[in-house]
Amino acid sequence: MRARVLVRPKQGILDPQGVAVERALPALGFKGVSEVRIGRLVELEIDNPAELDAISSQLLANPLIEDFEIELLEDAPAT
Amino acid sequence: MRARVLVRPKQGILDPQGVAVERALPALGFKGVSEVRIGRLVELEIDNPAELDAISSQLLANPLIEDFEIELLEDAPAT
Repeated sequence: MRARVLVRPKQGILDPQGVAVERALPALGFKGVSEVRIGRLVELEIDNPAELDAISSQLLANPLIEDFEIELLEDAPAT
Repeated sequence: MRARVLVRPKQGILDPQGVAVERALPALGFKGVSEVRIGRLVELEIDNPAELDAISSQLLANPLIEDFEIELLEDAPAT
């Protein structure tokens, strides 16, 4: 089934990319944007969605500084 | 309101990060994962969600090689 893993910098961890975006926006004429956080989006096709948690913490995210969230994109039953 | 921009490599564009993850998985004991694509996840707070399309194409994504998708995370009416 199709799944998505959202990887975000943990709360309290500095996010330099987000800071850079937030600072660049006013110069482009966009006001009123705040709390920009930039993470990774991983989309994949997986036979056994039960493995996603282990895959995410071992390979996709760095649990010291990142949180991850798993979204299953099809309603096929998880095994 | 809270919004999310998903930035993905365009179909047909090489995604070296995704290839690397896909190749690493069998060595970690995970089979049955394919079509791994890695993109960026941008989450932000924005006063005027109507600006998100322009912000995404000018600053968050490179439209030559990336697609983006906007998700509004709260049900406040867009202005």
